Amino acid sequence: MALEPLPETDRTRHRRLREQGSLDRADLNAILDAGFVCHLGVVVDGRPLVVPTVYGRDERQLYLHGSVASRSLAGGTPVCVTVTHVDGLVLARSVFEHGVNYRSAMIHGEARKVTDPEERLAGLRLLTEHAAPGQWSYARRPSRRELAATTLLAVSLEEASVKIRTGAPDDGDGPDAALGIWAGTLPLTSAWGSPVPDPLLPAGLPVPGHIARREGTRHG
Amino acid sequence: MALEPLPETDRTRHRRLREQGSLDRADLNAILDAGFVCHLGVVVDGRPLVVPTVYGRDERQLYLHGSVASRSLAGGTPVCVTVTHVDGLVLARSVFEHGVNYRSAMIHGEARKVTDPEERLAGLRLLTEHAAPGQWSYARRPSRRELAATTLLAVSLEEASVKIRTGAPDDGDGPDAALGIWAGTLPLTSAWGSPVPDPLLPAGLPVPGHIARREGTRHG
Repeated sequence: MALEPLPETDRTRHRRLREQGSLDRADLNAILDAGFVCHLGVVVDGRPLVVPTVYGRDERQLYLHGSVASRSLAGGTPVCVTVTHVDGLVLARSVFEHGVNYRSAMIHGEARKVTDPEERLAGLRLLTEHAAPGQWSYARRPSRRELAATTLLAVSLEEASVKIRTGAPDDGDGPDAALGIWAGTLPLTSAWGSPVPDPLLPAGLPVPGHIARREGTRHG
Repeated sequence: MALEPLPETDRTRHRRLREQGSLDRADLNAILDAGFVCHLGVVVDGRPLVVPTVYGRDERQLYLHGSVASRSLAGGTPVCVTVTHVDGLVLARSVFEHGVNYRSAMIHGEARKVTDPEERLAGLRLLTEHAAPGQWSYARRPSRRELAATTLLAVSLEEASVKIRTGAPDDGDGPDAALGIWAGTLPLTSAWGSPVPDPLLPAGLPVPGHIARREGTRHG
């Protein structure tokens, strides 16, 4: 299966690149790096199952934390992994032209259970550092027993498609523009808050810099 | 298929309800109402496909905007619709206990293409008002032609499962508590920004109250 070519229809052309597919690997990487939770789709007994889970990546592979879905994953099970960032609502003059500004990456592949201890450790490190940069060297690393109890899946990043929509609604130069209806976008942003200490923590233990520094920064 | 019973294992019991499944319909509704983008899973040629799309609901059904996935949906196609809100990172003393605070709803059902014009209009209204409250009565409603060009799917809300994790890490009373490692959560919140007018809008058209009022409010 190759990368799905993007159909260039009258509709997409008229949208002036506001909604577009991308075959640029840099776009794929940017979308993956902006988040840490994906939706993993698998087929179980002929039915779809979509499970949220955390991920990390290197240049060639996505690593996923094993979940309820892993139980039904034999070697080479087809998966679809989707990462979506919702950037806002597109409020058009007509209900029909309403939409969402978003960035979405869809990875098609086969899930492989990572069994090699070295790759498992490396994958878990990627996953940890992806979600919580700095924690791999700060927190206690997995013991041999913990590592064995962790299910890690790998999916090749070879087959992926990206879709991005940005900008204003599309009915600004059509007949509806004369209606006097306000139109535009309502942005949605996600940001890290103040670290909340575990109540069981001894008093006076400061928040480490690599965690404290994220407060107020944007996510997604 | 009935609601999947939640396995009560030693692990879940030890987690002191920080991670739990819920069979409470109020939890399901709250999770659905807090978002407007879901991940729709379908099986196409034996492979999973996970597509982000917008949704609305009434008491019995979820309505989904037709997408690339709809093309392959015959009547009664099995779907899995998952809505996830990521509430923050769980930063434990050990990498092994790291996790995510989240709320997730998973709906299992069969997708039905909505063909009845009245239900189609009602469903589209639910979907529009769910994402952009107030827009159904403010923007221009769909014409007959636009309505016919809109693919709307319905999925029963009967079979659903909910999973929620909240609160601190779970290793605060274990041996790792003695390590002197900071632990807690890093909250993630999503909020609506300032409305951005379409550059093609005539000058002086004010932002309607139902849109302006959302600025600064929390999403998810």
